[in-house]
Amino acid sequence: MTYCLAIKVDEGLVFASDSRTHAGVDYASVYSKMYRFDLHSDRMMVILAAGNLATTQALINLIRRDLENPGALYNLNTAAYLYDAASYIGGTSVRVQEQHASAMQRCGISGEASFILGGQIQGQPPEIYLIYPQGNYITASPENPYLQVGETKYGKPILDRIIAPATTLEDAARCALVSIDSTMRSNISVGPPIEIAIYRRDSFAIGHYLQLDYSSPLYASIQKQWAEGIRNAFSLLPRFEWE
Amino acid sequence: MTYCLAIKVDEGLVFASDSRTHAGVDYASVYSKMYRFDLHSDRMMVILAAGNLATTQALINLIRRDLENPGALYNLNTAAYLYDAASYIGGTSVRVQEQHASAMQRCGISGEASFILGGQIQGQPPEIYLIYPQGNYITASPENPYLQVGETKYGKPILDRIIAPATTLEDAARCALVSIDSTMRSNISVGPPIEIAIYRRDSFAIGHYLQLDYSSPLYASIQKQWAEGIRNAFSLLPRFEWE
Repeated sequence: MTYCLAIKVDEGLVFASDSRTHAGVDYASVYSKMYRFDLHSDRMMVILAAGNLATTQALINLIRRDLENPGALYNLNTAAYLYDAASYIGGTSVRVQEQHASAMQRCGISGEASFILGGQIQGQPPEIYLIYPQGNYITASPENPYLQVGETKYGKPILDRIIAPATTLEDAARCALVSIDSTMRSNISVGPPIEIAIYRRDSFAIGHYLQLDYSSPLYASIQKQWAEGIRNAFSLLPRFEWE
Repeated sequence: MTYCLAIKVDEGLVFASDSRTHAGVDYASVYSKMYRFDLHSDRMMVILAAGNLATTQALINLIRRDLENPGALYNLNTAAYLYDAASYIGGTSVRVQEQHASAMQRCGISGEASFILGGQIQGQPPEIYLIYPQGNYITASPENPYLQVGETKYGKPILDRIIAPATTLEDAARCALVSIDSTMRSNISVGPPIEIAIYRRDSFAIGHYLQLDYSSPLYASIQKQWAEGIRNAFSLLPRFEWE
């Protein structure tokens, strides 16, 4: 399994992902699920991927080929809107899945994959899209300023409590880190390193990129402080009347 | 959906459940999912239920009938071990599900239900069992001192951080409340009132029972304090090096 999320705040975007991939319990490995692209200077896009690794790799491969191919009908550089890029990724994802669908179905394995596309094209605001395995897609809203794929439930409560459009980029990144940390504690199919990318609105480049392992001083100290903070908050809760 | 959990600590047991039931989004209603029984003085048992409401009600009905029927081959009062009571509940659950299975399958609805049985029989320690829809069951362990059914993921991280065998009954009950509160904030299929039952080891009776709604002063104050505590813990997290 996997856990990836993107957060959209007024200041810009935050992307975060874990790195554990497994085919059964005896073949667990480390793969980045955050893909960045070398695009024209008027745009920045990041893709986060959850689901079948072969589908994801095939999709990213096709996206990169289209970017390098001067004759490609469409690519991330020619998209006029981020919405169109989401549509292109959704369509390509469905095509990739269909290629192996019947063979996959025969052995009962799912080739499905979900993606988050986030970025900005000059003249338009930053946006994030969740692209379903069926190729359709949704964007975030001010009331729901984040999107998740993979093992989304464990890490959702902290996002619901903290994230709002006015949250700073750094607080959004810290919250993403806590959300993934909580998920990793409760589900072994999500694992380090954690990747975090921070994009400031209208900068058209990733401002900060971090890859954090248990041994990273920042991650270790956030993890320790959060555990202490939670225990402290818990100890201050009101008592029952009979206590 | 539903969220129920039972916690086993050295001092005894805590049971907690939400009360939202729905058949589609246009038929949501309030049903208790915590069942207590009038048993002999040498035993105490509580059942928590998640899944198909008709299956749950049929099961509880059969359990109560067996208790009232002097000719019943087996009931919760004749069980020599809690393990046997779990087996009896699992078997009865499968029988109930089979009764309507073919009609349910035809319209693609699941009649499955999961249960948690917790309690104590004199001479034995308190125990909790998770009974799967297939009728098999597992108990808790010192490393995993709680069991959940229904929408289990949102509320798991806080249990993983707080609950251990040495946790007091009251702290375990507070933690269960926070776990359900976090789940209700993130998932509309789980809703109030929250029921909490606290059982002190070797007492053979529920010591405290609470039914808490948003308007209950205790719940409102725990909810407010927890939200503040989380925000406070979050604000104290280490900064990134560039901040």
